[in-house]
Order: sequence, then structure tokens, then C-alpha cells
Amino acid sequence: MKVFVQGMGLMGASLALRLKELGHEVAGSVRSEGSRKLLKSRGLPEVILAGEFAPEHLIGTDLLVLGLNISDCLPAIDAAMAIPELRESLVVIDMCSTKQQICDHVAQHHPQARFVGTHPMAGKETQGPGAADALLFENCTVYITPAVSNSDRLIQDTAMVAEFWRSVGARTCTIGALDHDRTMAYVSHGLHLAACLIARMSGEAAGSPDTPSPAAGSYRDMTRIAMSSGAMWQDIVMSNRENVVHWLKQLSSETNLLAEVLESGKADIVSLFSDAATARARVMRT
Amino acid sequence: MKVFVQGMGLMGASLALRLKELGHEVAGSVRSEGSRKLLKSRGLPEVILAGEFAPEHLIGTDLLVLGLNISDCLPAIDAAMAIPELRESLVVIDMCSTKQQICDHVAQHHPQARFVGTHPMAGKETQGPGAADALLFENCTVYITPAVSNSDRLIQDTAMVAEFWRSVGARTCTIGALDHDRTMAYVSHGLHLAACLIARMSGEAAGSPDTPSPAAGSYRDMTRIAMSSGAMWQDIVMSNRENVVHWLKQLSSETNLLAEVLESGKADIVSLFSDAATARARVMRT
Repeated sequence: MKVFVQGMGLMGASLALRLKELGHEVAGSVRSEGSRKLLKSRGLPEVILAGEFAPEHLIGTDLLVLGLNISDCLPAIDAAMAIPELRESLVVIDMCSTKQQICDHVAQHHPQARFVGTHPMAGKETQGPGAADALLFENCTVYITPAVSNSDRLIQDTAMVAEFWRSVGARTCTIGALDHDRTMAYVSHGLHLAACLIARMSGEAAGSPDTPSPAAGSYRDMTRIAMSSGAMWQDIVMSNRENVVHWLKQLSSETNLLAEVLESGKADIVSLFSDAATARARVMRT
Repeated sequence: MKVFVQGMGLMGASLALRLKELGHEVAGSVRSEGSRKLLKSRGLPEVILAGEFAPEHLIGTDLLVLGLNISDCLPAIDAAMAIPELRESLVVIDMCSTKQQICDHVAQHHPQARFVGTHPMAGKETQGPGAADALLFENCTVYITPAVSNSDRLIQDTAMVAEFWRSVGARTCTIGALDHDRTMAYVSHGLHLAACLIARMSGEAAGSPDTPSPAAGSYRDMTRIAMSSGAMWQDIVMSNRENVVHWLKQLSSETNLLAEVLESGKADIVSLFSDAATARARVMRT
């Protein structure tokens, strides 16, 4: 298969490395000359600079993988779909963390596009092609959000895309875009914001730089994801704003309630811990 | 040195194993016969059951290490200090996560006690002597809260206790009990409760048990500490209630504020992420 990965950050570059191993013909684009050289040295010579890219390059490509932030994905799809030949021949997938916005955009503006929304749950706090790993998708969950459509071709494309993700080691799960985005607020997007608020608050208790750090494993783990890319998360959060706002308000209310219960002296933290463990086990499937 | 570790859970048993390696004479008490056998098999034959323990056993011991929850520490100190000989000869330390309550108790009821409050930042979500590791305290921070006292002997005891912790690999830091407890709310106690609330909320989005888990690394890390012992945390939180309540209210308010900013559409998550990273670096000393 001939694949073009437009935007080779952590996920795009990791996917390209794995596809190359599997014998596919892989090309792609990156933002900087440094990234281009780095990926060339890792066995991906067909990488060009984003500035040199034109959608015409995609003619003859079977699959376009968008490795861009969501706000860059939308114009990238628009540009590709402006070329009649590509509307017919090119299957397009994205890897964004939210699905409603991009699926809506395609349904509204490119109803004939062979687009399938996908979301590999493989993010890390490390970024860029330097952190790429051909095994990144091994056993990771990839959500696939099929378009609401009566097109047989799109059903076949969806099946092909699911098989594609399984071929690089992932487990796939089809889900509606709305359900997906709501779930993500509860297991990922909200958590990133909470980690940031908690980390920012902790600055008040940092203490003197001359003393040992008060951070133990719990602090390190709970605030690790606050080190993610703010620009990427700005995009993610704004494209899942409604669910994230709902989650934040729920956390605010539960946090306040717990404070009141603790103040009253009638706290039962034991049941909070056991309820939390039960819910976590359900989410983790353990 | 002759050491008795009263309460050999994760921390107590880990410390006992290390002290044995260093050539000290180590005895201690555990709650169950299973734990007693386990520790015997790991080279600690002098372990008795808590039910067989009497404070008279401590006569001739140089250092009593309390490995109990804070609510059990207070009566344990009372019992030991009821024996005049021990008031003279026995240095007592605890390992509780809060320091104000226990230091206040000793200052009020046992002003002559040779007690030094200590808090090794070495907790884990695993519990019990089965998880014990002689290297648990390697490079961990141990807070030491000296009593407010004009006793030369207590000053010497404090220095001895600091040296004791450094001998098992820890870095020590003296701090006032109030400062300690406030700091802990911001880097540990509040975080444990937030992790529980977030994990409990996530149950709403767990999805079907037949589908792959929606949990990625961020979820696993952020909710890991929700798996800690609820009983232990009930104790910790209630003994640091004022600071924890303050922290929870602050998080509630910041979470609500962020929700409002996101709703208004004028969100700047980028600066939230950069402020969080800066604060985290200060806390981590990186």
C-alpha cells in the first residue's frame, strides 16, 4: 500500500516507521529540516518539508494519514478534496483526540470523501519525531468513528481502516463520534486540565530550591501529563469544549462537596477510595 | 543499635530489612501470623504479633520506630511513655504523613518524651510487608519536624534521627510541622483525593466490558494513587483536614473558573500548560 503521512510528530513518525517495517511504500511531510534529516536517518527517505507539500503529490497514494492537530486537519482535508481525482481514489484518516468536529466538517463539506475518523490512544508527554517508536501502537486502543452514511464504499473503507490499525498492533473499537468525545472528557481531556491546575497550585508549596523536593511518586505521576504540549491541548480541548466544560463543572462540584463533608467531620474517605477503585477497574477492564 | 519497629507494613518492614543489612539488632510487631512468617523468611526472626506486644518489651531498646497509622500512633506513644524507664532511655520516631497532630499530642501529654516526628516520602499504592524493599528509602526525602523545645537532649536526638535516616539512604529536611502539613496538602494529600474523585467520575464513561479499555497512560498514571488504602488515607486526611479542605476548595474554584473561561471561548490553555510546567519544575527541583 502507498501511504502518505502528513504531519510526522510522535504518532505520525511512529506509524511511518512501523509501516516501513511492514513493507509499505511510505512518504510524508514534516515541519522542519531537522525532523526531515532525523527521519531520513531512521530509514524514511521519502519525507518532504510541509512547505514543499502540495495536494497533487497525493495522486497515486492509497491512504492519507493526517498526523496534524485538528485545526490543521480541516484545511488539509479541504485541500485534498479540492482535487476531483483524490475524492475518488484516496482514503483519508486522521489521528485526532476528538472526533465530532472533524466528522461533522467532512459530512458537511465533503460528503463524498472516503474519510474515516480514527483516534489511537497512544499519546505521550514526549513530542516530535525524535520520540518516535515503531512499537507505539502495540496493544493500544484505536477508536474508529464511521461516518453516518449509506455508502457501501465507506463501509468497506471503514473495514479496511480497522484492519490497517490492527496490522500495526492496535486493538480497534468502533464508536459514535459523540460517545467517543464524551468518553475522552472522562478518561483523558478533563484529566489533562486537572493535572495542570493541580501542578500550577503546587507552586505555592514548592519550598526553597535548596531543600530536597517534596515530590514523591504520587506527585510525579499525577502531574506528568501537565508537561504535554499546550498548543496541541488548546486544540483538543476547544474541539471537545462542551464535554470538557461539563466534566470540569462536575469535578468542581464533587471537590467542593468533599470539602464540605470533610469540614463537617462526618467524612467517609474509605468508601470514596473503594468506589474509585471499582470505577477504575471497570475503565481499565481489570 | 537496638531498634523496634512497631507496625511493619510497607515502610516498617522495608526499614527493618535495611537496618538488618546494616547490622542493627531489629525486632518488631505485625498484625497477622502470615506477615510474621513472611518476615521471618526474609531474615527477620525477632518479629512478634501485635497482640503479644507489651511496652515493657521496649526496655533496653534504643529506638522505637512507629510504623502505624496516625490514630494508632497516639495510644502507642501513650503506652510507651507510661513506663518511666522508657521516658528516659527510648528515642521514638513515627513515619506518619502528617506531623502537626502527633507533635501537638506529644508536646501536650509527654513533654519529656524523646520524640522526633519524621515523614519518609516513600509511600506506594502497594501495601503490607509483602511489598517491602530494603532500598525503599534510597534517595527519598524524609521530613523531620523537631519539637518546639529548649531541651539540649532533644536537639541531640533530632540530629541522631536525621543521621539515622541518612544511614538508610534518605535525604533529610527539617521543617516545622505546620509548614510540613500545608506542603503535603499541595503535593500529596489533596492529590490522592482528586485522583479518587476523578477515578470515581470515570465510571460513567467506562463503556461496555466487551470493548477495549479507553484508558491510556494518562488515565493509568493519574488514577493510580486512587488504589491506595482507604483506611490509611481516612486517617491521613482527617489529621490534615484544615489544609486538605483549603486545597479542595481552591481546586474546586480553579476548576470552575477554567470551565467558565472555556465556555466564554476566550480560553488560553497554552499559558495554563506553561504555568503548570514551571510550577512542577520548581516542586521537582528540575
